[in-house]
Amino acid sequence: AFSSAPITATLFPGDGIGPEIAEAVKQIFREAEVPIEWEEHYVGTEVDPRTQSFLTWESLESVRRNRVGLKGPMATPIGKGHRSLNLTLRKELNLYANVRPCYSLPGYKTLYDDVNLITIRENTEGEYSGLEHQVVRGVVESLKIITRQASLRVAEYAFHYAKAHGRERVSAIHKANIMQKTDGLFLKCCREVAEKYPEITYEEVVIDNCCMMLVKNPALFDVLVMPNLYGDIISDLCAGLIGGLGLTPSCNIGEGGIALAEAVHGSAPDIAGKNLANPTALLLSGVSMLRHLELHDKADRIQKAVLDTIAEGKYRTADLGGKSTTSDFTKAICDHL
Amino acid sequence: AFSSAPITATLFPGDGIGPEIAEAVKQIFREAEVPIEWEEHYVGTEVDPRTQSFLTWESLESVRRNRVGLKGPMATPIGKGHRSLNLTLRKELNLYANVRPCYSLPGYKTLYDDVNLITIRENTEGEYSGLEHQVVRGVVESLKIITRQASLRVAEYAFHYAKAHGRERVSAIHKANIMQKTDGLFLKCCREVAEKYPEITYEEVVIDNCCMMLVKNPALFDVLVMPNLYGDIISDLCAGLIGGLGLTPSCNIGEGGIALAEAVHGSAPDIAGKNLANPTALLLSGVSMLRHLELHDKADRIQKAVLDTIAEGKYRTADLGGKSTTSDFTKAICDHL
Ligand SMILES: CC(C)[C@H](C(=O)O)[C@@H](O)C(=O)O
Ligand SMILES: CC(C)[C@H](C(=O)O)[C@@H](O)C(=O)O
Repeated sequence: AFSSAPITATLFPGDGIGPEIAEAVKQIFREAEVPIEWEEHYVGTEVDPRTQSFLTWESLESVRRNRVGLKGPMATPIGKGHRSLNLTLRKELNLYANVRPCYSLPGYKTLYDDVNLITIRENTEGEYSGLEHQVVRGVVESLKIITRQASLRVAEYAFHYAKAHGRERVSAIHKANIMQKTDGLFLKCCREVAEKYPEITYEEVVIDNCCMMLVKNPALFDVLVMPNLYGDIISDLCAGLIGGLGLTPSCNIGEGGIALAEAVHGSAPDIAGKNLANPTALLLSGVSMLRHLELHDKADRIQKAVLDTIAEGKYRTADLGGKSTTSDFTKAICDHL
Repeated sequence: AFSSAPITATLFPGDGIGPEIAEAVKQIFREAEVPIEWEEHYVGTEVDPRTQSFLTWESLESVRRNRVGLKGPMATPIGKGHRSLNLTLRKELNLYANVRPCYSLPGYKTLYDDVNLITIRENTEGEYSGLEHQVVRGVVESLKIITRQASLRVAEYAFHYAKAHGRERVSAIHKANIMQKTDGLFLKCCREVAEKYPEITYEEVVIDNCCMMLVKNPALFDVLVMPNLYGDIISDLCAGLIGGLGLTPSCNIGEGGIALAEAVHGSAPDIAGKNLANPTALLLSGVSMLRHLELHDKADRIQKAVLDTIAEGKYRTADLGGKSTTSDFTKAICDHL
């Protein structure tokens, strides 16, 4: 029995293993009585001229209307004349911050057991401008663009997030010793925002040094905020520390409070439809979405159930060294609820 | 007794701990009877207008003449109107490839014990063009430049190196899914060169995925070749896997066979002059230089002596968890020779 009307959220099951892991998430959410109704949208079979990609205009409108969504893996069909699905979503929905909580999973051993950090990546500009050109034959250039507006908004988000989640430190990652103007502007914006959060320690770390420190001692970091490409690199590096993209949730924050959570792993066509996929990343992304909706009780319950199931070790999918099917693993999580 | 006249090599002791560790290297080279005579050059105390930096023209001329050199850490003095010392060396001497062998040190435990790879970084262009500009207030851009010429020569070097050192695989690291023209050109050049080396396996790995794989299983990699910024990031990440920049040699290869080996760690002013610094990175860089000169016997002997000293564990400097002074550690290496 819900105390209020259910929330409508967009669901993109995606391709490959997407539909199976989305099914798992729906089942677990039902079991946990999460007050969400899904509005499902699939990637189209031809390019929609209004989005210049295989994403339909209707599916974008769905996220805009619901303000919240969950997305499985989407492989961009190969061919010319259309945009990558992921980049289209980021651009069209102005998903300016990609947030990835990254923590060691109790009971799932990797080389590191003390990772507990959040990467916050600027998601709309920088090296992803798409502006490239050939100057003369054999000489090409690409433009990296950093703006005050985008840098400030992602910095604001990072400090806001740190404060709201009781985090103590924000590290801005950069290469301003080389890119003094672009990364310099990014740092300037971070510093401005940092001044409004005197209770949060602010530091700046050069990206090469950051990567070295992350592999030597990830416990040194708390919240990291950075331009687009550095975020792309460092968020994957951090995922590697705790076991890979199959375990890490991700959530994109857009203008006006839109949140599109997503599993950032691939669509694994080789195991698609075989009941072998691990739904953890999509499920934990769903948990991120619940937290964004301030449904913390539900989020806590589901997160505990999946982490306990993995820690127990009896039911694990093949990627985690186990022998369970997707359905067995899903059932085990439901049983833990 | 030398069979031929000694080779003259330029030595930049550098700043901070530089002179102490350079002294250690000289002592060990003497003990090993390496047929090298050093021509020492210090960083100047004012900007040399001919180099626009604190590096003197004479010191650059020395490397150009000797074609081989060894360099300690150099802190670029703060202030406007002059160029970074490291970047000046790369530009003026056309040091197009930065080569860093990175292997787990026997007996020096880190989380990884099976690292054995080489990073080869394009060292002259890419994101380091220095071309940045403010479009309008709050909007800045920087230019990444990739040329066929520089990409081909670093790719050639990487495959040549792989073959000469009995390596089996070259991985080109890129982000051509986003920077299709720039990183795409880099890949195209690597592919062209790869065709001339059918005995070497060639693969392409996206940088974010590469960093994830490196922290999960560095043994997957052999020789890595990449544009400037990716090389900066990945070479430091790899150094982190085996213990840090204090242990990793580096050698820069320039046009016309110039080789400038260097310790890439900082000048550590806090411990300078205290007989506490670890000379390993500079010494192993010296070993790289000897290999470049094809003095493999001397290189093997010195490398074995320093690795044995570290493995034994009796004499280690503070950064390696020991209590030895620089001189004790140096003497221990000499005793191993
Ligand atoms: C697939 C690719 C375009 C994408 C990116 O580079 O942003 C991916 O690596 C990611 O992190 O979501
Ligand atoms: C000090 C800095 C300019 C330099 C670089 O970015 O190349 C350093 O990180 C290096 O790797 O030598």
